[in-house]
Amino acid sequence: MNTRAVSSPERRYVITFGCPDRTGIIARISSFLAEHGGWIVEAAYHTDPETGWFFTRQEVRADSLPFGVDELRALFAEVATALNVQSTWTVTDTGERKRVVILVSKEGHCLYDLLARVATGELDVEVSAVVGNHPELGDITRAHGIPFHHVPFPPNDPEGKQAAFAQLRALVEKHDPHAVVLARFMQILPPELCAAWAGRAINIHHSFLPSFIGARPYHQAHRRGVKLVGATCHYVTADLDAGPIIEQDVLRVHHGDSVADMVRKGRDIEKVVLARGLRWHLEDRVLVHGNQTVIF
Amino acid sequence: MNTRAVSSPERRYVITFGCPDRTGIIARISSFLAEHGGWIVEAAYHTDPETGWFFTRQEVRADSLPFGVDELRALFAEVATALNVQSTWTVTDTGERKRVVILVSKEGHCLYDLLARVATGELDVEVSAVVGNHPELGDITRAHGIPFHHVPFPPNDPEGKQAAFAQLRALVEKHDPHAVVLARFMQILPPELCAAWAGRAINIHHSFLPSFIGARPYHQAHRRGVKLVGATCHYVTADLDAGPIIEQDVLRVHHGDSVADMVRKGRDIEKVVLARGLRWHLEDRVLVHGNQTVIF
Amino acid sequence: MNTRAVSSPERRYVITFGCPDRTGIIARISSFLAEHGGWIVEAAYHTDPETGWFFTRQEVRADSLPFGVDELRALFAEVATALNVQSTWTVTDTGERKRVVILVSKEGHCLYDLLARVATGELDVEVSAVVGNHPELGDITRAHGIPFHHVPFPPNDPEGKQAAFAQLRALVEKHDPHAVVLARFMQILPPELCAAWAGRAINIHHSFLPSFIGARPYHQAHRRGVKLVGATCHYVTADLDAGPIIEQDVLRVHHGDSVADMVRKGRDIEKVVLARGLRWHLEDRVLVHGNQTVIF
Amino acid sequence: MNTRAVSSPERRYVITFGCPDRTGIIARISSFLAEHGGWIVEAAYHTDPETGWFFTRQEVRADSLPFGVDELRALFAEVATALNVQSTWTVTDTGERKRVVILVSKEGHCLYDLLARVATGELDVEVSAVVGNHPELGDITRAHGIPFHHVPFPPNDPEGKQAAFAQLRALVEKHDPHAVVLARFMQILPPELCAAWAGRAINIHHSFLPSFIGARPYHQAHRRGVKLVGATCHYVTADLDAGPIIEQDVLRVHHGDSVADMVRKGRDIEKVVLARGLRWHLEDRVLVHGNQTVIF
Repeated sequence: MNTRAVSSPERRYVITFGCPDRTGIIARISSFLAEHGGWIVEAAYHTDPETGWFFTRQEVRADSLPFGVDELRALFAEVATALNVQSTWTVTDTGERKRVVILVSKEGHCLYDLLARVATGELDVEVSAVVGNHPELGDITRAHGIPFHHVPFPPNDPEGKQAAFAQLRALVEKHDPHAVVLARFMQILPPELCAAWAGRAINIHHSFLPSFIGARPYHQAHRRGVKLVGATCHYVTADLDAGPIIEQDVLRVHHGDSVADMVRKGRDIEKVVLARGLRWHLEDRVLVHGNQTVIF
Repeated sequence: MNTRAVSSPERRYVITFGCPDRTGIIARISSFLAEHGGWIVEAAYHTDPETGWFFTRQEVRADSLPFGVDELRALFAEVATALNVQSTWTVTDTGERKRVVILVSKEGHCLYDLLARVATGELDVEVSAVVGNHPELGDITRAHGIPFHHVPFPPNDPEGKQAAFAQLRALVEKHDPHAVVLARFMQILPPELCAAWAGRAINIHHSFLPSFIGARPYHQAHRRGVKLVGATCHYVTADLDAGPIIEQDVLRVHHGDSVADMVRKGRDIEKVVLARGLRWHLEDRVLVHGNQTVIF
Repeated sequence: MNTRAVSSPERRYVITFGCPDRTGIIARISSFLAEHGGWIVEAAYHTDPETGWFFTRQEVRADSLPFGVDELRALFAEVATALNVQSTWTVTDTGERKRVVILVSKEGHCLYDLLARVATGELDVEVSAVVGNHPELGDITRAHGIPFHHVPFPPNDPEGKQAAFAQLRALVEKHDPHAVVLARFMQILPPELCAAWAGRAINIHHSFLPSFIGARPYHQAHRRGVKLVGATCHYVTADLDAGPIIEQDVLRVHHGDSVADMVRKGRDIEKVVLARGLRWHLEDRVLVHGNQTVIF
Repeated sequence: MNTRAVSSPERRYVITFGCPDRTGIIARISSFLAEHGGWIVEAAYHTDPETGWFFTRQEVRADSLPFGVDELRALFAEVATALNVQSTWTVTDTGERKRVVILVSKEGHCLYDLLARVATGELDVEVSAVVGNHPELGDITRAHGIPFHHVPFPPNDPEGKQAAFAQLRALVEKHDPHAVVLARFMQILPPELCAAWAGRAINIHHSFLPSFIGARPYHQAHRRGVKLVGATCHYVTADLDAGPIIEQDVLRVHHGDSVADMVRKGRDIEKVVLARGLRWHLEDRVLVHGNQTVIF
């Protein structure tokens, strides 16, 4: 069982939804919670005036409500119907530990970083498995007590690649993960995997998107002579490096920096941008709105 | 009359308050607004778990309510009483243009910057007057069509200084300003002025407080060999450079930077930090909580 | 005469050049200076391993040399020939005040900012003239005692535009400026002006290039959902927004920021990026190398 | 033997020194190198006008010189004498791999980070040993194949502590390390260790010094209500948290961040600040000048 102590004061129920904006939504949701004694510890709202859409995230102390998450979900469904929220709402329980599968190639900095955050207790998730299209990162994964699967992706072999993606999919989906993290995984997911993992597959791209889409972004950045390099954490969609952006950051470089220096310096940005984006995703802080994100 | 078009869709009523946290506050305030048809365009909440205090800021479209700001204030007073808010709530009307008095010495960069923001329409306030303890900044002030008053502060003359502060106070208070901005004003306000202008007197200090309190902070920073210099916008209190911080920012310096270079580079941080802090104050986004601030 | 006190200890001669790298260049240039008693107060070097090109900037106290800038230039020409520097070297004298012409449209924030830096003595240049394709910024320019010329650019009138560019060119070139600053000038320079002002025409583009080239970059940025907006100062070339980048910086935005908020916040970055880039250009700190810059 | 391939084009000799400034130093050192065919790949200079002191760092391709590092050192000694450099010069060989000993307590984020940088090849050093005053970080250390020593420091037992420091000293010094890294080591080094390891002991302090010296800096920062938290990498001296600063950086926090949030966010800054500072130290890029540093 992956459930923590039931009545910890730290345990929260998290409600998120988006719906067409109109007067009284905040009153409706907060009254619903208040009438059951719900103690809101964090509440955030956003209205997008362009699309007339309303978003919220409510974090409630679990021990303030007289029932569990399933009953909360059932009761909230009525509110959601009344507010015309349709299918885009979630009610989650921080008492359930989130599961993550990480996909890697040879570049290890993001994997080392995520494993360290988990090992030191900073990121309270279960890393169910790491899958690599190269075997190099197996040792560090296993040193953390996590299963590592090597799935080779044969170059110039479409059928072999398709089989590899099928194997990858099976390895990932048996864990039903809350997030599939492409931690410098150098294969482009086929459209069917983008669809299957929509809203859960998170990539770190080593440029400040939309600049330098695709391969070797630091080389592109060096050639263009930019004065800052960046990294972008985004949801994976079928459109390469064009999914909703969760987080970005940049770092100053200068004329003395070679491509190798940019690659080295950029890693520090990639690591923190991915770690922040993943944390927000797992804490249900990221609401997707078209190709944009609301970060609560 | 300093009031803008009454029914503009851009006009807002802004409600802020802090009170002891308990279940149902958000429901209470949002239901109050909803029952009058209030259209909330921005809502922010904060709970401080250490002190058990709750804070909120609500921005409502004025044209969504069937009454004016005075009636809103009267009606809200009842809510405030019910919530035990006591005296710390405000209801303001963006239709009333805010008034600002700026205090300066010889260093002009913050004054030039604020005047430019007003002239270009970015900062929609009335600069009622500029008061300088030196005459140098009179020309640029008058070029913007703003009255400039020169109030000399004689050094080593306590009585003369006291008289100067009395004159300054009279010049400021006749405008009943929403903010008194010490834009690199090099005189320390006496306790009675700190008290009279509490929560309205805003200073820009040219260091990243609490480092380098007092005189010549860039010299102090240079001597200590720091790698970043900063600026701090804070409310003035009787305790020098120790009032609640509204905003801070920093800028990288290096071993080649002399004190003069730090002074020059630091100006760019002082300007933006002051401008951001002043904007937030005038938009009623800053709630003081002990010696800390909540920035909505 | 625009020349300052001849023998001030602050007066410098600045030598810059680039040449094919080989052993002994630093020895050659530093020995040349040493044998005349030249006191180097700042020396910077860069070697680009990819192209095998060497760059340097040397700042020498004028009063340490027994001759003036013309003789230094004549003597240095021999060194330049020996090092195969060809035509890319400069010897300048900080005793000669640099001249700048600023081009504007209606958006005033960059102009206000530059004028303030000049007025407060931070930027020690002569603003010879401001030319606007709209009349709005005439008043603030004249308040600073600087001539303002209004040159209308008729839309949808190629011949009228050509005539306007001819008039603009004449107004600019009669001052023989060291820099032509496009301070949010909304006209695209024709190729012949790009050529005539190559290495002197400096633009501020309101995005973090190469993202969001062309019109309305903040709208583009908002649509893409980026988490940082930026600004880029670059030399103007015939290829739109693609010239060598001098300086860039960014600023965090979030989901609550409308396009108008991005425009407003972005101004603070545009101002400092332009001011830094212009300062470095005028101090002969920017060496162009292909489409990249070396910033000493 | 800890020496790499002798004639790699990547191998460098690095010369650093500081001396009283006078005309001709650059000519002297660059001529010395040129006459032996030395190919300078990176050259940096700094003059401090306040103290009249000159600093330089020269990086020369080892394969461009007709002799090894010992002969270079012997030859350079003559130049150093001529320039009155006295004892403050170094000539190092990147062919010799640097050795590091890391001291830790229970907080593992900096250790995990450094070990990952070494394991992925980013930081090319030998971690000779890790010493902890608690046993918790032994497992991850050993997983990287590095010896871990647990040296308990008994509280309230001056003699026991003294014995522990003696044991620590012996464990460290048998490796003759180029750097002793206090990676969140929670013991204050006694003066004799500060003296013994002067210029080699590097600490990461979890605040933006000189703010919040000593214990629990994030608690201090939270209480003061600062809007940014930082970290400082500095050389250890007998004066607590007051040694020469190598590197600093900051991160934005806001009113919603508890002390625990600050601690968590701050780790990302601590890690990169320590890693940058350590890299620069090991690359002989840090020259100490009084209580300041020159970073080449």
